[in-house]
Amino acid sequence: MATVTLITDEEASPEVRAVFDDIRTTRGSDFVNNFWRALAHDPALLKATWDRLKDVMAPGALDPLVKEIVYIAVSASNGCEYCCHSHTASARAKGMTDAMYGELLSVIGMANQTNAVVNAMQVPVDEEFKA
Amino acid sequence: MATVTLITDEEASPEVRAVFDDIRTTRGSDFVNNFWRALAHDPALLKATWDRLKDVMAPGALDPLVKEIVYIAVSASNGCEYCCHSHTASARAKGMTDAMYGELLSVIGMANQTNAVVNAMQVPVDEEFKA
Amino acid sequence: MATVTLITDEEASPEVRAVFDDIRTTRGSDFVNNFWRALAHDPALLKATWDRLKDVMAPGALDPLVKEIVYIAVSASNGCEYCCHSHTASARAKGMTDAMYGELLSVIGMANQTNAVVNAMQVPVDEEFKA
Amino acid sequence: MATVTLITDEEASPEVRAVFDDIRTTRGSDFVNNFWRALAHDPALLKATWDRLKDVMAPGALDPLVKEIVYIAVSASNGCEYCCHSHTASARAKGMTDAMYGELLSVIGMANQTNAVVNAMQVPVDEEFKA
Amino acid sequence: MATVTLITDEEASPEVRAVFDDIRTTRGSDFVNNFWRALAHDPALLKATWDRLKDVMAPGALDPLVKEIVYIAVSASNGCEYCCHSHTASARAKGMTDAMYGELLSVIGMANQTNAVVNAMQVPVDEEFKA
Amino acid sequence: MATVTLITDEEASPEVRAVFDDIRTTRGSDFVNNFWRALAHDPALLKATWDRLKDVMAPGALDPLVKEIVYIAVSASNGCEYCCHSHTASARAKGMTDAMYGELLSVIGMANQTNAVVNAMQVPVDEEFKA
Repeated sequence: MATVTLITDEEASPEVRAVFDDIRTTRGSDFVNNFWRALAHDPALLKATWDRLKDVMAPGALDPLVKEIVYIAVSASNGCEYCCHSHTASARAKGMTDAMYGELLSVIGMANQTNAVVNAMQVPVDEEFKA
Repeated sequence: MATVTLITDEEASPEVRAVFDDIRTTRGSDFVNNFWRALAHDPALLKATWDRLKDVMAPGALDPLVKEIVYIAVSASNGCEYCCHSHTASARAKGMTDAMYGELLSVIGMANQTNAVVNAMQVPVDEEFKA
Repeated sequence: MATVTLITDEEASPEVRAVFDDIRTTRGSDFVNNFWRALAHDPALLKATWDRLKDVMAPGALDPLVKEIVYIAVSASNGCEYCCHSHTASARAKGMTDAMYGELLSVIGMANQTNAVVNAMQVPVDEEFKA
Repeated sequence: MATVTLITDEEASPEVRAVFDDIRTTRGSDFVNNFWRALAHDPALLKATWDRLKDVMAPGALDPLVKEIVYIAVSASNGCEYCCHSHTASARAKGMTDAMYGELLSVIGMANQTNAVVNAMQVPVDEEFKA
Repeated sequence: MATVTLITDEEASPEVRAVFDDIRTTRGSDFVNNFWRALAHDPALLKATWDRLKDVMAPGALDPLVKEIVYIAVSASNGCEYCCHSHTASARAKGMTDAMYGELLSVIGMANQTNAVVNAMQVPVDEEFKA
Repeated sequence: MATVTLITDEEASPEVRAVFDDIRTTRGSDFVNNFWRALAHDPALLKATWDRLKDVMAPGALDPLVKEIVYIAVSASNGCEYCCHSHTASARAKGMTDAMYGELLSVIGMANQTNAVVNAMQVPVDEEFKA
């Protein structure tokens, strides 16, 4: 149903195969999801996207679970079906409980609500908020 | 610059004043920011929004700082100038460091990037991700 | 501050002047707002946009005020500063009261809230809703 | 296909059941659509969303049909599949004719068109439009 | 699955049939895609949309393939499933190669990434960029 | 006015200075625009963003001007003020004429219009468009 076919392991070129292998090693799982199989049509884009994602989502000043939660919030606001599914699955795998998910949905809903109302009224930014 | 004037303390009706007072008490600060002063044109909307926001952003299964971080991510994805400013200020007041902010920007950027690429290709959702 | 300068009456070519005149006649006002003065850099785009807008916003099965209200809702959801200002002014000129504006903001807020929550959960469409 | 399962009447806890009952009574119909069955995973979010929606969509300064029309416009601009379906069905049930729907689509299209063009050119807001 | 049924050639009124015929003649193909069959419920909207689209997408200062590429970029950013599919098919028919598509995806991803990061930080526009 | 201050050449750390130098060399200009000065608060994010942007926007299967045109289209659809200004300036520097800009605005407007109308009606994707 995509605009491209999904590249199987068999069809993968050596560069693509190297990225698939790194995904498997990094995640400790044999599963390579469809996003990477679609991107594999352009090996350079596949590699650049995976290398950056691996770096960005790694533990750092923010916890990996918090990063997945941020990803869900962005994906829901943008209406990306695939991304909502894949990052909700990742967040659950990293420990997101039902209670956390319920609160996340509440914040996502509230933020989208007040964003739209603020935009409608074009509220000027308080001087106190400026850097 | 807004589509409505900002209601001052002097202009506030008793219902509006009651909400402003609750904002001050809840936050332990005398500052009432412009969003509430704009919403004050409709006291019922002001009260409903504040009551819900207070509830949603309170400590729970997710930390209040994580909730502010989610709010920034949504506001950046929607392009809400006021909300980016106000929630970045709130997040900093709740302990967001420069390192956390830098990683947050990285995740926001990455999520918006992959959302758009996934949408362009209309990647089908993997069966493994479905509830 | 725009990416183009704003075309004054003096700078307007005959085709542009003809559109400005029709805007003035249709609206019964001498005021030609900045959107048209920016579009005037491309006379064909100016004319196509104005001709279509005049037609779309005219009285029909939907009242012109309802059409302005829809325009505000779209503009708020897209975060278009100029459009929120211009269509709120138009809606007020066509009779939008403070009470109507307050309710409109409530619906805009609610719709953006539930849109995001539905997208987050990817709720399947009920069979009952399909045409 | 959602990120959560849909809660049936049999699975509903007493708090969830109370909301489902209020939905049925308020709408005068036995049908509880999937949005509420998905939200039911978080009874507090379910109740807060329904209570607010019931209030916001009730007759007031704006007609309930106008409110549904606004909801469609927001949902189309945000690309929310579920919401476009559910609110189009609601609007039709409240009297939206084919002629009204056609004009609504025209206004939604025009608003999204001019929003994007205004944003591209970053047209400055006319002084005449400011409150 | 749409909110309206799709109008077949047999069901088409004479005005609708005239537009369908013009689509066929202009494109040199018998195929009339679902977008036009859905719009056909409102013959005036169908005709206005087709007439404008035919004009906008015709060869001019920008090549028709560049116009299709722009259409894909907008559709991906807005998350429009149908539009991503239909305009990717059109772009390929007009000569978009796999290498071009891969680079297009890279630019779309980069632009959505930096848009969100710029919005998050609310970077002020450099004087050098203003017209 | 940003959420961060803008890093001047004097305040730049050696890593930041190295990126600023590469921006100057690559572009053959002494001008380093505000986006990079804001990002400079996080040297790793600055470097990752610049390195990727330089690569993505370089000549390839798509002409650099076409890439700037795509960037404008995405930025207009997302409502990013800064990005519309900076990429319109870049596109002009790379040869975008007034006629090309006018046609670009027409395509951006049309795409956003039909995206919203398609989303409103949830038109099913034609089998002919699927890969």
